[in-house]
Amino acid sequence: MAAPTRDVLYYDESQRTPLTPYLPSQILSSSSSKPHVTLTFATSLDSSIALAPGTQTHLSGPSSKAMTHFLRSCHSAILIGVGTALADNPSLNCRLSGVGGYGGSGLDNQPRPIILDPSARWGDLEGRKVIQLAREGKGKAPIIFFRRDVWEERMGDEEFRERMKVLEECGGGYYLVAPAKGEKFAWVDILGGLKEVGIRSVMIEGGGAVINELLGPENFPLVDSVIITIAPTWLGRGGVLVSPEERRTNGVQVPVGRLTDVKWVPLGEDVVCCGRPNLNG
Amino acid sequence: MAAPTRDVLYYDESQRTPLTPYLPSQILSSSSSKPHVTLTFATSLDSSIALAPGTQTHLSGPSSKAMTHFLRSCHSAILIGVGTALADNPSLNCRLSGVGGYGGSGLDNQPRPIILDPSARWGDLEGRKVIQLAREGKGKAPIIFFRRDVWEERMGDEEFRERMKVLEECGGGYYLVAPAKGEKFAWVDILGGLKEVGIRSVMIEGGGAVINELLGPENFPLVDSVIITIAPTWLGRGGVLVSPEERRTNGVQVPVGRLTDVKWVPLGEDVVCCGRPNLNG
Ligand SMILES: NC(=O)c1ccc[n+]([C@@H]2O[C@H](COP(=O)([O-])OP(=O)(O)OC[C@H]3O[C@@H](n4cnc5c(N)ncnc54)[C@H](OP(=O)(O)O)[C@@H]3O)[C@@H](O)[C@H]2O)c1
Ligand SMILES: NC(=O)c1ccc[n+]([C@@H]2O[C@H](COP(=O)([O-])OP(=O)(O)OC[C@H]3O[C@@H](n4cnc5c(N)ncnc54)[C@H](OP(=O)(O)O)[C@@H]3O)[C@@H](O)[C@H]2O)c1
Repeated sequence: MAAPTRDVLYYDESQRTPLTPYLPSQILSSSSSKPHVTLTFATSLDSSIALAPGTQTHLSGPSSKAMTHFLRSCHSAILIGVGTALADNPSLNCRLSGVGGYGGSGLDNQPRPIILDPSARWGDLEGRKVIQLAREGKGKAPIIFFRRDVWEERMGDEEFRERMKVLEECGGGYYLVAPAKGEKFAWVDILGGLKEVGIRSVMIEGGGAVINELLGPENFPLVDSVIITIAPTWLGRGGVLVSPEERRTNGVQVPVGRLTDVKWVPLGEDVVCCGRPNLNG
Repeated sequence: MAAPTRDVLYYDESQRTPLTPYLPSQILSSSSSKPHVTLTFATSLDSSIALAPGTQTHLSGPSSKAMTHFLRSCHSAILIGVGTALADNPSLNCRLSGVGGYGGSGLDNQPRPIILDPSARWGDLEGRKVIQLAREGKGKAPIIFFRRDVWEERMGDEEFRERMKVLEECGGGYYLVAPAKGEKFAWVDILGGLKEVGIRSVMIEGGGAVINELLGPENFPLVDSVIITIAPTWLGRGGVLVSPEERRTNGVQVPVGRLTDVKWVPLGEDVVCCGRPNLNG
């Protein structure tokens, strides 16, 4: 096992306590129809999560990074959209001290990375951090959610079969979803798929498209907890926005969603907003 | 003097303390080239300050309202754009217990309302709360900032002369600014005008256009403190956004502005973000 390295992160017990009520409970009933869903991201004051599409912006401070890794250690999977996988080349592992690969044994408490990639756009696997880390025993390999028709078609193609081989060799896999032509995956199907592959809790980290879908009225009830880090900065127009579609009741515009059981936890210069969807609000 | 009424607000000493470092100091040097500027507003998590243009949205909770009135009592003026004056018909007075008209004597600690109305769109004065309150001795009458050319032209017109009479009779007035054709007022000129009419500190409350101007690179250095209330809700697209224009350095997009000396103060379900512009950030 690789020795812990300089990139190990620590997150104080005292800082963990305020988050506890929003985390998946240790004993999740296996009869629950879907995994516990935590939606989490870092945003600016003007609700931007990146300065421009296709780029990565480091918004929050160092304590917030440690918090993210603590949260990862509490979930059995992390999910992102392919936009984020392509823009950020994220590691998607947990570097918290004591977790498998970072002082812990095996892959203990490492979350499973999940990538929504309906059209199989995430190629060039050799260059991906998440693949490298899986090979080094410092993280789990990803499971990719493809469209069934895309997957079937692409399996006729040598490059793609090679890609699937790389994925499987490092312990990854795929899951096929069959939405109607031109439709996205329904979130009930995504969560159903996660349950089928053994995921009991998932931390959904972005990006913009994924977050805006989950804040919409059909999907918000599927979310159990929301943990948002807000940095005291304005990124300006033209960025990737958290900006859910408007909602109307009898033709009148109403708020899209509200949190309840809200707790605000200052963290360095940032604040962490914890809450649960208020489905009566 | 009118007896205090049911609309009197109270704001605890303990809640005032965290705000103190961001308030205009009691003794402002008269040689300061501009009034102390506090920028303040209430926003949703998606950086929206109203559900739709021209409408008012009550975003923050009751404690936040009391805080706003406490802040008003600490400033010699409140400034808004005419968009807000028309959409909200705001009272623009201070209803904090102990202030003039609310238990205090005269108009003690009542801020002077200032409205930026270059094209004299704010008519129908009889229907305006701020005028009614001034007549009842519960607030100061507004000073309106007009374009000089608009004011000169409109003074040829009976209805407008009547409007100016109503304004002056209740103790209000106007200030004329002469920007180049088609230009807005420069904020240095607005603040210079405020100083000229004896304003030593101004709380700028909105709306969207005014806030976005002040967050821009030329104007942000004129701001001394920022006090934002964030409510744990998403209003959805189509609202009035705090969304300053993007900023580029050598062609690369960079954050528009950042706060320093940041303090986050939970207030009911909301959080208050206090800070000062970080002009090196
Ligand atoms: N600040 C933060 O916390 C944070 C976190 C994560 C990401 N980010 C930033 O966010 C940006 C990326 O966001 P993004 O909006 O471009 O991309 P994204 O949300 O990461 O991914 C969007 C893509 O994922 C697929 N997808 C999403 N929902 C789906 C569904 N229901 N069914 C099927 N496929 C689905 C679609 O792929 P197809 O287009 O192939 O159909 C969609 O275009 C980057 O700039 C990144 O840095 C910031
Ligand atoms: N949540 C909150 O805290 C909060 C606070 C206040 C307002 N609001 C909301 O904000 C909305 C109104 O915002 P808004 O963007 O429409 O209007 P606004 O910012 O209140 O007023 C904009 C108008 O003011 C004048 N103005 C602004 N800057 C100027 C300058 N530098 N020089 C000359 N004139 C200037 C211009 O008038 P002309 O167009 O005539 O040139 C401009 O169109 C309303 O929905 C209101 O409810 C929310």
